[in-house]
Amino acid sequence: MTPLYFFHTCNIATVRYNGSIMKAEIVSIGTEILLGHIVNTNAVYLSKKLAQLGINLYYETTVGDNPERLTGVLKKALLRSDIVFTMGGLGPTVDDVTLAAICKALARRPVLNERIKRLIVRHYRKRGLKKTPEDALRQALIPRGSYWFTNKVGTAPGILLKRGKKMLIALPGPPRELIPIFENSVIPFLTKRKLAGKHTIRTRRIKITSLTEAEVNRTVKDLLSIGPETTLGVYVHLGEVELKITAKAKNAKIARRQIQKIEREIRKRLGGHIYGTDGESLESVVGKMLAEKRKTLAVAESASGGLIASRITNVSGSSRYFKMGIVAYSNKAKTKLLGVSDGKIKKYGAVSKEVALSMAEGIKKLFRTDTAIGTTGIAGPTGTAGKKPVGLVYIAAVTDAFKMVKEYHFTGNREEIKWQAAGAALDLLRINLKAQG
Amino acid sequence: MTPLYFFHTCNIATVRYNGSIMKAEIVSIGTEILLGHIVNTNAVYLSKKLAQLGINLYYETTVGDNPERLTGVLKKALLRSDIVFTMGGLGPTVDDVTLAAICKALARRPVLNERIKRLIVRHYRKRGLKKTPEDALRQALIPRGSYWFTNKVGTAPGILLKRGKKMLIALPGPPRELIPIFENSVIPFLTKRKLAGKHTIRTRRIKITSLTEAEVNRTVKDLLSIGPETTLGVYVHLGEVELKITAKAKNAKIARRQIQKIEREIRKRLGGHIYGTDGESLESVVGKMLAEKRKTLAVAESASGGLIASRITNVSGSSRYFKMGIVAYSNKAKTKLLGVSDGKIKKYGAVSKEVALSMAEGIKKLFRTDTAIGTTGIAGPTGTAGKKPVGLVYIAAVTDAFKMVKEYHFTGNREEIKWQAAGAALDLLRINLKAQG
Repeated sequence: MTPLYFFHTCNIATVRYNGSIMKAEIVSIGTEILLGHIVNTNAVYLSKKLAQLGINLYYETTVGDNPERLTGVLKKALLRSDIVFTMGGLGPTVDDVTLAAICKALARRPVLNERIKRLIVRHYRKRGLKKTPEDALRQALIPRGSYWFTNKVGTAPGILLKRGKKMLIALPGPPRELIPIFENSVIPFLTKRKLAGKHTIRTRRIKITSLTEAEVNRTVKDLLSIGPETTLGVYVHLGEVELKITAKAKNAKIARRQIQKIEREIRKRLGGHIYGTDGESLESVVGKMLAEKRKTLAVAESASGGLIASRITNVSGSSRYFKMGIVAYSNKAKTKLLGVSDGKIKKYGAVSKEVALSMAEGIKKLFRTDTAIGTTGIAGPTGTAGKKPVGLVYIAAVTDAFKMVKEYHFTGNREEIKWQAAGAALDLLRINLKAQG
Repeated sequence: MTPLYFFHTCNIATVRYNGSIMKAEIVSIGTEILLGHIVNTNAVYLSKKLAQLGINLYYETTVGDNPERLTGVLKKALLRSDIVFTMGGLGPTVDDVTLAAICKALARRPVLNERIKRLIVRHYRKRGLKKTPEDALRQALIPRGSYWFTNKVGTAPGILLKRGKKMLIALPGPPRELIPIFENSVIPFLTKRKLAGKHTIRTRRIKITSLTEAEVNRTVKDLLSIGPETTLGVYVHLGEVELKITAKAKNAKIARRQIQKIEREIRKRLGGHIYGTDGESLESVVGKMLAEKRKTLAVAESASGGLIASRITNVSGSSRYFKMGIVAYSNKAKTKLLGVSDGKIKKYGAVSKEVALSMAEGIKKLFRTDTAIGTTGIAGPTGTAGKKPVGLVYIAAVTDAFKMVKEYHFTGNREEIKWQAAGAALDLLRINLKAQG
C-alpha cells in the first residue's frame, strides 16, 4: 500500500495546531470561474466537508490565473486565517500559477521533487507516452519545505506547507482529482493531527409536501430561534418545503441526538405532510411503499407528459412494481386506449376531475394493476382550453381501497408545472397507500 | 411608469469613471454559502453579466453574516477594486448585516429613507398586512448619501454608494430580486454613465452529439489556441460535447463577426454532428423539424422509461406533433399493446434491435403517426438480462422514408443511462428527418 501522504522534509508532528478553533479560508483559482463559465462546485464540496470536520470557514475568495493578484490574496489569507486551502492552478500549463504564487507569498524557493517527478513520468508512461512532456515536469517543482499528497488520478500532487502556526494546503482543480486527495489524504491528516475542530456539524433534511412555506413557517416558528447549537431553517423547492436541522456538537452522536429531539417535535406537528428525509424523493418513497405492499402501478399522463413515468423509472428496481405508462396527449388516445367515454369529455371537458379519474381507472383496468394515476391539465403557456387557466391540473390516484381525485392550481413555466403535477400525483398516491395502513 | 432608479441625494453624473478599464469585485454575504448549504448561483450570474459588460472581475469573496469580517472584506475590496458588488444580507432579520457593515466600512451614518419606507409599507399592505412588521422597516435605513434601485419583487432596495472614484452596489440575495434589479436598473445605469468597459465579451455555444470529447478535440485542435481575442473551449456534458466560442471585442457587432468566422470553420469540419446552438436542446430542435414538416410522433419506451416523452412535452406547442407515448416496461405491454410478436422476444430477447424496431413500428401503426421512436435496453444497476450488460440500449427511429435502428453502450448510473438513451433517440430521429431533406 502506498502511504496516504508522504512527509517530504520535516517532521509533520510539529504542525499541530494550538487547540482553539481553526479559522479556515478557501482560495479558488481560475479565470473561468470569474467569467462565469464554470460553477465552483469545489467550493461547495469543501465548505460542506469543513463544516463536518468542525473547521470554521470564514472566507472564500476566487481569483483569476494572475500571479500578482493571487500572491496578494494568499498573503491576506495567511494573515487572517489559520488554514488556507487553495484549489486549482496546479496543472502543467503556463496558466497554472498557483505554485509560483505560493512560493512568492511565503518566500520559498521552488525545488524539484524527484519522487513527484518519477510519479509524473510513470503516469505518462502508463498512458503510452515514452517521453514525458517538458511542461508536465513543472508540477514537480514544489515550494521548499512542502509536504505532498499523492494524486492517483492526475499528475499534480496536493501540497501542504506550514509557516508558524499557519498552514496552507494546495489542491488540484479537477473535482475527480481534488475529492480523492481530500478524502483519502487531507481528512485523515487533519483528523490524525487533531487539527479538525472540537465539534462536528450534522444536518438532517425533512421533506414536506402539500403545505406552503408560510404554513410550515407558522407551524415551526418557535423552533426557528432555538439556537445556537441547533438551528432550523426553512427552504422552498418547487412543490416542496424542506426543513433543515443543523446541529453543532462535540461529536456525531450528540449532534444526532440534538437533531432527533427537534425532528420528533416537527413530526408531531407536521405528521402526514412529511414524506421523507435527506436523500429520499417522492418517487423513491412511493416505490418503497409499492414494493413492500407488493402492489403494481400504471400511470396515464396528460398534463405531466411522461414525467411521472420517468421519475418512477429513475428508481432502481422499479420494474418490479411499475407496469405501464401512457402519455395520452390527444383526446383520441384518451378514448381509444384508456376507455374514457366521449360523452364524459364532451360534458366535463378533457381537463376535468371526471376525465382524470376515468384515465386512472381506464389504465388500471387495462393492465390489471393494483394502483393507478391519471393526470389532465394545462401545462401552458399556450393552449388554455376555454375558460380553464394555465396551471389547472386534475390528478387521480386510484387503488382497490380508495379513489382520490383533486384539483390543483400550479404556477410557473411549463417544466415547473409538469414537475409540480408529477410531484402532487406521487404524493396523492402516497397518501392513498398510507390511508390503507 | 416608476423610474428604474431613483437619485436619492446628489448628482449621479459625478460618478463617471475615469475611462480606463474598471476593476470589479463581488462580495457574497451568507453563512449558508460557507456551510455549503447553498450553491452561489448569484456569483455565476453576475460574473457572466460583468464579462458581457466588459467590466473585468478580479475577485470574488464570500463571507458569513458577521459584521466585523464583512466590514474588513469591504474595506479591502474598496482598496483594490474600482467597483464592488455585494450580494445578500439586505433582508429584515438580525442576520442581515450588510447595510450596517457598509456604513462602518465607508464611515456613513444610516438614515431612514422615507420613500423606501413608504414602498415597504405599501408592499405589506398589498399582501393584506395592515401593520408593517417593525423589522421590515430596517430595510429603509440606508447609508447616508446612497442612491437606490427599486425592488419590485421584494422589499430590500438595491443600494449604490460612491466614494471618490470608487463605487459600491449592494444587491439583495434572492435571485428573483437580484436579477430584475440588475437587468432593469444596474445595467442601464452602468451603460448610461459609460461605466461599462470599452470592450464586450460574447459567447456562442455549439452543441454536438455522437462524437466523443477526444474526437471533437482532435478535429478542432488547431482552433483551440487561436486567442487572445477569440477563444475556443471544449466542454463535456452527459451525451453531448459543447464547443464554446468566446470573443472579446470593441462592440457586440465585431464580437459576433469574430464568432461567426470560427463557427463557419467548425461547421465545415463537424457538420452533421452539430444539432444546435446556445439555448437549443435536442427536443426543441426535433420539435421544430416535426412542426415545420407537419409530421406527427409517437414513442414507445422501455429503457428510457418515459424520459423521451417528458423531454418532448417540455417544449411548448409539442401537442401539435406529439400524439402518444407508451412506457412499456413489461413484455406483456410490448406484445399486447405494441404488437411485438412473442416469437421475436423469444428469439432475440426483449433487449434487441428487432424488438426496438418492432416497438417503433407498432406504435406508429397503432396511432397512425408519421414518425415513431422505440427504445429497449438495460438501465441498471439491477436486472442484467442474461449476457447483456448494463448500459446496452437499442434505439429505433422510424419514418415513412427510413427505418433506423442502432446499438448503444452507455455508462453511468441509472438516470445517466436514461438521459443518454433519450438524447440518442431524439438525435436518431433528427438524423432520420434530416436525411429526408
